[in-house]
Amino acid sequence: MRCAILGGAGFLGRHIGRAMAANGMEVWSIDRMLPAPGAAPWLAGELQADCFDLASWWDNMGEADVVVHLASSTVPATASEDPVGDAQTNLVGTLRLVQALRLRQARPRLLFASSGGAVYGRPSYVPLNEDHPTMPMGAYGATKLAIEHHLRIEEAQFGLPCRILRLSNPYGEWQQPHGVQGVIAVFAHRALQGLPVDVWGDGSVVRDFVYATDVGRAFLAASQHQGEARIFNIGGGTGHSVNDIIRTLEGLLGKTVEKRVHPARPFDPPVNVLDIRLAQEELHWKPEMSFEEGVAMTVHWLRTTP
Amino acid sequence: MRCAILGGAGFLGRHIGRAMAANGMEVWSIDRMLPAPGAAPWLAGELQADCFDLASWWDNMGEADVVVHLASSTVPATASEDPVGDAQTNLVGTLRLVQALRLRQARPRLLFASSGGAVYGRPSYVPLNEDHPTMPMGAYGATKLAIEHHLRIEEAQFGLPCRILRLSNPYGEWQQPHGVQGVIAVFAHRALQGLPVDVWGDGSVVRDFVYATDVGRAFLAASQHQGEARIFNIGGGTGHSVNDIIRTLEGLLGKTVEKRVHPARPFDPPVNVLDIRLAQEELHWKPEMSFEEGVAMTVHWLRTTP
Repeated sequence: MRCAILGGAGFLGRHIGRAMAANGMEVWSIDRMLPAPGAAPWLAGELQADCFDLASWWDNMGEADVVVHLASSTVPATASEDPVGDAQTNLVGTLRLVQALRLRQARPRLLFASSGGAVYGRPSYVPLNEDHPTMPMGAYGATKLAIEHHLRIEEAQFGLPCRILRLSNPYGEWQQPHGVQGVIAVFAHRALQGLPVDVWGDGSVVRDFVYATDVGRAFLAASQHQGEARIFNIGGGTGHSVNDIIRTLEGLLGKTVEKRVHPARPFDPPVNVLDIRLAQEELHWKPEMSFEEGVAMTVHWLRTTP
Repeated sequence: MRCAILGGAGFLGRHIGRAMAANGMEVWSIDRMLPAPGAAPWLAGELQADCFDLASWWDNMGEADVVVHLASSTVPATASEDPVGDAQTNLVGTLRLVQALRLRQARPRLLFASSGGAVYGRPSYVPLNEDHPTMPMGAYGATKLAIEHHLRIEEAQFGLPCRILRLSNPYGEWQQPHGVQGVIAVFAHRALQGLPVDVWGDGSVVRDFVYATDVGRAFLAASQHQGEARIFNIGGGTGHSVNDIIRTLEGLLGKTVEKRVHPARPFDPPVNVLDIRLAQEELHWKPEMSFEEGVAMTVHWLRTTP
């Protein structure tokens, strides 16, 4: 079995690639960037290419049985600033990829990383299951949701098999702590440096976090899934507040973490926690890493990485 | 009040323009094509322009208070054949338009023609109300739905007011009877010519039809609506089967209409009827044209148009 990971040089791409390779797959990374040398010794190959341009990588690696689609040019904030660019690159790009597969009669299984934090919008209830209404509150979620619909339709009309994984907030080693996403990595990095962390509101906002190795296992399980379901929440299954993160870091570091408090953001829903029972039943997957252990692993990685 | 109708030269554009002008609005048509001379004497102006390129028409007509967005380059069949082109033109085009308004700080009310036949997918119940899950079964509906989400988000984040009208199947005078849409016009035309009509399956498939003048009145009402709701089903509110259409035509023409029967299409849901109570309550709108009268008007128009 050959697996192509679109966006394979990134944080999640590396975790998913390692999980796939450990299960005997021949794993290729396709990414705009080449990973650092030696960063992913389990890869069979690495191609620097436009993920959305099938012709630029499909023949070079040989046909894939599984395509993991992690490629994205945006994060929520940049998508809201430029919804045209977001839709153009990520939605139209994905459709170009899918249509190219249609024209070549190629039917790999496509595993798409959607967002459990963005597609549902303000929760009517928690934990959110996959049947919760989808009312994204930003362009980023609107694009993720549109891709989901198009993949479902493509399978029904043209037989391209897909599985959609609605991830909560992945974290863990290899996540860049200087980005605009990844609150645990950012907070852990700043706390280690003795810098204050930015908190919007009173820190009571609750989110769902899932450790990156558990995400890797979820994609592996989805690559083998035989049931009828197509959309799976992949999360930690329990909520943790911003204050929980800070308290956990303080416990690990044995010191107080300074907060820089900003006004609450009106568009932040107070709680977002995913119901992961469908993934447990259908994918026989559940997260193995506890929150405390995952934060400790993240801190350890940040401490030991130059 | 000045109103721009994007796609104003088309069938629905003419009906909506006439309704708006009859209510005292200064109505401009923006379309890739110029209408036939004298086809719309109520218009204050007609511009041949790319509807999605704000710069090509906004300043030429003077700023609009209301923008009616009917522009579309696809029908369901062509969108499924080329989802890339559909998303590129219609979704990205609409986002370009919206983003251009955002950059200019212009906040006209945008009235968007969505599709009550395409955004819901296979009905879980009928009549379909606006809260029914949205699971489009084709690229056309996926694009309409993505535009809906983006407009809702744009209003929440940047204050562009919008109303979304999910139309069932509009029909009536000015609808081209040679197209791939508009079963009533196509059947009426063929029956008048003594040609057979194409029926897929046993003709029991039920759809919702709404007369074009009623659609015009609905857009007029939406241009003035002050409530909180944003999405309205606009339909006839009752279902009619393909066989109903044929029987009605046979009664009007006093002759048998020949059928050419094809296998049923598995993707046709057996019933799609819209619940229009929200539009009745919020827009104080309901259809005034009965089905029998509307079909008779259509036949009369086809008979008397050279």
